[in-house]
Amino acid sequence: MEKNHVIRIKCSDKKGLIAGITSLLYQHGHNIMVMKEFVETATGQFFARLEIAGELHAAALEDELRQFLPPAAKVQIIPQQKKKIVLLVTKEYHCLADLLVRQYFGELHAEILAVIGNYPLLEPFTEKFKIPFHLVSHEGISKEEFETRILNLLQGYQPDYIVLAKFMRILSPRFVQTYLDRIINIHHSFLPAFIGANPYKKAFERGVKLIGATAHIVNNDLDEGPIITQQIIPVKHDDGLTDMIEAGHEIEKAVLAEALKLVLEDRVFVSGNKTIVFS
Amino acid sequence: MEKNHVIRIKCSDKKGLIAGITSLLYQHGHNIMVMKEFVETATGQFFARLEIAGELHAAALEDELRQFLPPAAKVQIIPQQKKKIVLLVTKEYHCLADLLVRQYFGELHAEILAVIGNYPLLEPFTEKFKIPFHLVSHEGISKEEFETRILNLLQGYQPDYIVLAKFMRILSPRFVQTYLDRIINIHHSFLPAFIGANPYKKAFERGVKLIGATAHIVNNDLDEGPIITQQIIPVKHDDGLTDMIEAGHEIEKAVLAEALKLVLEDRVFVSGNKTIVFS
Amino acid sequence: MEKNHVIRIKCSDKKGLIAGITSLLYQHGHNIMVMKEFVETATGQFFARLEIAGELHAAALEDELRQFLPPAAKVQIIPQQKKKIVLLVTKEYHCLADLLVRQYFGELHAEILAVIGNYPLLEPFTEKFKIPFHLVSHEGISKEEFETRILNLLQGYQPDYIVLAKFMRILSPRFVQTYLDRIINIHHSFLPAFIGANPYKKAFERGVKLIGATAHIVNNDLDEGPIITQQIIPVKHDDGLTDMIEAGHEIEKAVLAEALKLVLEDRVFVSGNKTIVFS
Amino acid sequence: MEKNHVIRIKCSDKKGLIAGITSLLYQHGHNIMVMKEFVETATGQFFARLEIAGELHAAALEDELRQFLPPAAKVQIIPQQKKKIVLLVTKEYHCLADLLVRQYFGELHAEILAVIGNYPLLEPFTEKFKIPFHLVSHEGISKEEFETRILNLLQGYQPDYIVLAKFMRILSPRFVQTYLDRIINIHHSFLPAFIGANPYKKAFERGVKLIGATAHIVNNDLDEGPIITQQIIPVKHDDGLTDMIEAGHEIEKAVLAEALKLVLEDRVFVSGNKTIVFS
Repeated sequence: MEKNHVIRIKCSDKKGLIAGITSLLYQHGHNIMVMKEFVETATGQFFARLEIAGELHAAALEDELRQFLPPAAKVQIIPQQKKKIVLLVTKEYHCLADLLVRQYFGELHAEILAVIGNYPLLEPFTEKFKIPFHLVSHEGISKEEFETRILNLLQGYQPDYIVLAKFMRILSPRFVQTYLDRIINIHHSFLPAFIGANPYKKAFERGVKLIGATAHIVNNDLDEGPIITQQIIPVKHDDGLTDMIEAGHEIEKAVLAEALKLVLEDRVFVSGNKTIVFS
Repeated sequence: MEKNHVIRIKCSDKKGLIAGITSLLYQHGHNIMVMKEFVETATGQFFARLEIAGELHAAALEDELRQFLPPAAKVQIIPQQKKKIVLLVTKEYHCLADLLVRQYFGELHAEILAVIGNYPLLEPFTEKFKIPFHLVSHEGISKEEFETRILNLLQGYQPDYIVLAKFMRILSPRFVQTYLDRIINIHHSFLPAFIGANPYKKAFERGVKLIGATAHIVNNDLDEGPIITQQIIPVKHDDGLTDMIEAGHEIEKAVLAEALKLVLEDRVFVSGNKTIVFS
Repeated sequence: MEKNHVIRIKCSDKKGLIAGITSLLYQHGHNIMVMKEFVETATGQFFARLEIAGELHAAALEDELRQFLPPAAKVQIIPQQKKKIVLLVTKEYHCLADLLVRQYFGELHAEILAVIGNYPLLEPFTEKFKIPFHLVSHEGISKEEFETRILNLLQGYQPDYIVLAKFMRILSPRFVQTYLDRIINIHHSFLPAFIGANPYKKAFERGVKLIGATAHIVNNDLDEGPIITQQIIPVKHDDGLTDMIEAGHEIEKAVLAEALKLVLEDRVFVSGNKTIVFS
Repeated sequence: MEKNHVIRIKCSDKKGLIAGITSLLYQHGHNIMVMKEFVETATGQFFARLEIAGELHAAALEDELRQFLPPAAKVQIIPQQKKKIVLLVTKEYHCLADLLVRQYFGELHAEILAVIGNYPLLEPFTEKFKIPFHLVSHEGISKEEFETRILNLLQGYQPDYIVLAKFMRILSPRFVQTYLDRIINIHHSFLPAFIGANPYKKAFERGVKLIGATAHIVNNDLDEGPIITQQIIPVKHDDGLTDMIEAGHEIEKAVLAEALKLVLEDRVFVSGNKTIVFS
């Protein structure tokens, strides 16, 4: 039981919260290695993330914490171990490959239980890494049926998080609710934004000088939800459409990896449509 | 007459253009210091910018160039000297101050002829630099009348470019047409974009992790037109609205200065709604 | 007395420090708006910065804090008001101008008491802003005498911090000790570093692709000491030496402004030859 | 023969070079898709890179070019096809894995003929991609013998370029001369630089705020030679040594991939100890 724990607390703010939390941990002899906290003025919410070294009795500690925390406090005491994730993909390989390689060399902070794709294209690459690949085609069936098949597969795996590694189907509210705040997505981002089909083509035609990527938690449709992290990459007038797409892929895989690291280390809190990130 | 010249050519592409241009310059004994050219595949347009050292007869050279260039070719032979600019401002000081300081120390590649503001707020600062400040209030008069007063002032100054250094009034098509491709604007940019009033507030509420700025040529309304350059600056969950606005100001002044340098050195071509930038 | 305070604590780490500090503040009814803390593993040092809203009795609070803090704890309780600074300059204007403009428009978090230069070049610009400029030439006198004259001037101003805004003279240990951890310097930085005279020329000849700037606290000679912040800017093969110097100036003024904001808001701790920055 | 060609020219500068080159290409009916050229003032050298669409007779064209180019001109006419490369590795996987994945999905612009490692660690991963892995241990043999074994292997493969994908042995002048200007290396870079062993540890202890990576052509020892490209990544005081090394790996693999793309597309010229990069 020598592993560390992360304590995450989200509750309405009041005076003395930090004193209460830290005094309790001190009484139990726990060593706080890192603590970060934040009060969101607009909502009056308090957020804290603490890393505690060594052994603890999670259920008992949670009870004691709740005794002085506000009634609806959300408390999580999480042993620091690899999370379980499932990846959903379509045809683009760049994010999938990046995550499989990271897991293979042990730098992902997660175990990839399976990859689910709606095309068979990425199966051979996935199998190099001895990860099961499940083909669930969306063709010839209703969206509801398509999602049911995926949900059934997920049910078998019980993942902590679902990563949309360039999964190009919009998820229904039913799906999103089933894994609320536990689905991570990555998408390109431009200044300005381009709505609808062929966004790279539109960005190219508009002559944007930056291409960005946004990793976010999915809460309703594919490209919305609380933003975890964003990065950009510069492009020039002599970059063609293909160059811009390639640049986009580079930045997408970097941003998804960065976001996933933050999520898997329990550093991301959701507050309405935004995130608190204790990086 | 020891100054240098920039030759700018925009025309439909055909084989032999570069050979024709460079052979002609060679026959006249001109030394090409830098040449950059680009063919835009989508439009079949050819763009070139050449820096020529020393003396030349612009009118004669232009005639000779036109003899083998396609009929509607746009040719400009521009002596390298400081451009004349007028700044339009409202209340925000950061871009104005940055440009006045750069001109004062001779690093702007331009002479600021005057500052026109629709509030008196920035007059004292402007006058420190012995630049005339004209107050043209928009209050109590029609937009047409407001713009006519500004156009009349500009008429007297004959600027090469007009710089909207945080000028917060939308210009009419009449105004824009009068100085077509010669009005430079700067505005914040977000991923995603936020339409309408209070964009920083919306970006803050959405929890964006990057704040950007876009400098562009004005061709219709305030925040559109061919993009010259863009940059971003990261923000965090604990940056308040004020921090985000300050970060935005930092990046806006940097981007405007960068864009202006490119424009004043005749490096920017407009093609439809995008730019070719020979940086 | 409605201003806020920053409490800064640096001491050897022990269990219960945060609990002790926050409980004490809670008992006194103080509202902790922001708290950041860090334990440096290598040295076993604990660092904390707390923002407290409203009125407090600094001396009494410090006494109470010291009762449970380790013996040699360094405690500072600082009312949040503008710091007093003096700028030292030589001939380069870019950092000086940037800081004078920021102070003029109230965004500097500091009052610039005076500018001291070893050349008269920057006097006219400084005087536009009604800031006294003192010329202290280094010519014809010993370094000791030169520094004594500056120290005498500083003695009259009692600044909180001294900012070397491109001051090109190396300070003696005597000078540095007089204002220990209170002198901020900015200098260019390259990958790799270039020792000795004409670093830009060497960097140009080496074909570096990035130019950086480093803001740091001065502890012995000019270009060493704990780093506060660093940024870079890309350069290309067709950027001449002058372009590289200009790029360096852009990044130097941005980095110095960023570093100064961190210092003036009491966010920077020194630990040996490095900094802890609670940004 | 419908592939494109790149023409690369390096010679001493004289008037009329561009006119001569482009006129010749025009006479032969060749279509110049992209041309970039640069005159290095310090050395008086002219550099040009042209992309020509379609069929051409390379030997004949080179002869004709040489008739008006200065005597010692270096002319290369290179059909645009995938280059052949061999990777040298030690124990670190991040660059190797990145390149293998890029080749697997066809985005590398190169064929990886083989991987040579002085430890067996990376063999299993390499073999997933059906690329031969050769173990050449440096233990128990002289450096000369070690290099001879590698050179013999390379001799069999006839690679266009050798990529040191975190190969941690310094190459002798004999080795470097054999593949002059054809060996690409990647290494971390810091501001300031840290000489000798354990640079990350030194950078950590010094509290640097940026970690960089430099890709360069090897011309004498491991960490010198003309720089192709550089990037940086920010780090904070609470990033431990391990975090800094991880950040370094991220940036190293990104920079090596970027540099390799430039080299493999024949965009990089060497001039003394610096590069001209027509990106």
